[in-house]
Amino acid sequence: MRTVDPAKHEARRRHILTAAAECFATKGFQNTRTADICAAAGMSSGNLFHYFASKQAIFTAIFEQDGHDNAALLEQAATADNALEALLGFAEFMVAQTEYPHLAGLMLEVIANAKLDADFAALLDRNDRENRDGLITVLKRAAAAGQIDPALDPVTAANWILVLIEGAFVRASADSGFQPYRDKAMLRRMITRFLAAEADRQA
Amino acid sequence: MRTVDPAKHEARRRHILTAAAECFATKGFQNTRTADICAAAGMSSGNLFHYFASKQAIFTAIFEQDGHDNAALLEQAATADNALEALLGFAEFMVAQTEYPHLAGLMLEVIANAKLDADFAALLDRNDRENRDGLITVLKRAAAAGQIDPALDPVTAANWILVLIEGAFVRASADSGFQPYRDKAMLRRMITRFLAAEADRQA
Repeated sequence: MRTVDPAKHEARRRHILTAAAECFATKGFQNTRTADICAAAGMSSGNLFHYFASKQAIFTAIFEQDGHDNAALLEQAATADNALEALLGFAEFMVAQTEYPHLAGLMLEVIANAKLDADFAALLDRNDRENRDGLITVLKRAAAAGQIDPALDPVTAANWILVLIEGAFVRASADSGFQPYRDKAMLRRMITRFLAAEADRQA
Repeated sequence: MRTVDPAKHEARRRHILTAAAECFATKGFQNTRTADICAAAGMSSGNLFHYFASKQAIFTAIFEQDGHDNAALLEQAATADNALEALLGFAEFMVAQTEYPHLAGLMLEVIANAKLDADFAALLDRNDRENRDGLITVLKRAAAAGQIDPALDPVTAANWILVLIEGAFVRASADSGFQPYRDKAMLRRMITRFLAAEADRQA
């Protein structure tokens, strides 16, 4: 019986997702053939189908993986010693993804797929809700620890932090001169000052 | 010779754009016929063609009008007595547009059209550049008047204010429970605190 090394399997899986994302972003989902993904990943189609059943399954898996990665980070943040610092780390992790060279192309494919495929749209909604709920948990902890303004409604604050993160994606894909991750001191300034209590701002 | 009342002509033109925007947002650009726009605007096709040559011309005109309205507001802001207040007014004016009931539908049509029509994409870029340049002018005046942190790079600050505005659009179209205009105290809090000099924050 052949044994599978889980770490190796996982690395191979992620390798395929990265190669496929680049194909989707540069050629478009419709124009990408599984043969293109195989070529980009440097593997045979038999080997590829061992990991994913179809092109659509690969596209979906890219954003499932994204959701898992974000959820894992927010789970860590929920028990971190410094809740505010963990929240800032999450925002920076998200905004770091704007450095992806094919961002605008991939975002267009995401929008097109969400319009055509209700299951994919539901996955994006689920990811979004998990991000929001994770942020709310961390914001409540930061408020309880006296790190942020206790008068701020955590749902409202979570939404505005997501406005910043999503806005950074939109703006970075519209204007290649704007690199929000290199500007991450500004992201940090916006979030910390937004969340601060008046007393801290006067300190 | 028939005389044209310019104010009446302008009002009629805007009426057509509003009616057409609703058709595009709810039915999609492809599925909207000029007959639908005529019905929504309550006018004959002969009368409609007196104002616009084609469906595409109407779609483009919606965003030309948007650009003109924003540019006019930023021009006023550039000479306003209180530059910071004028900047906040501009941001609120932009975010007020997220109240549009068919926002998500219209945004999808904008993205689809920009992908297919290079002239339309260039118009969006031009509007965007005008907004950014207008904001930079107002930010420089606010800095010169001692209203905001003089150490902030005005280009960077303008970009992050646009991140907030565009992020509010994206988030409002993704989550109907989030109404950034009703939350505009938060928008104001984010912008004023972001722009403030340390000294003002301690005042």
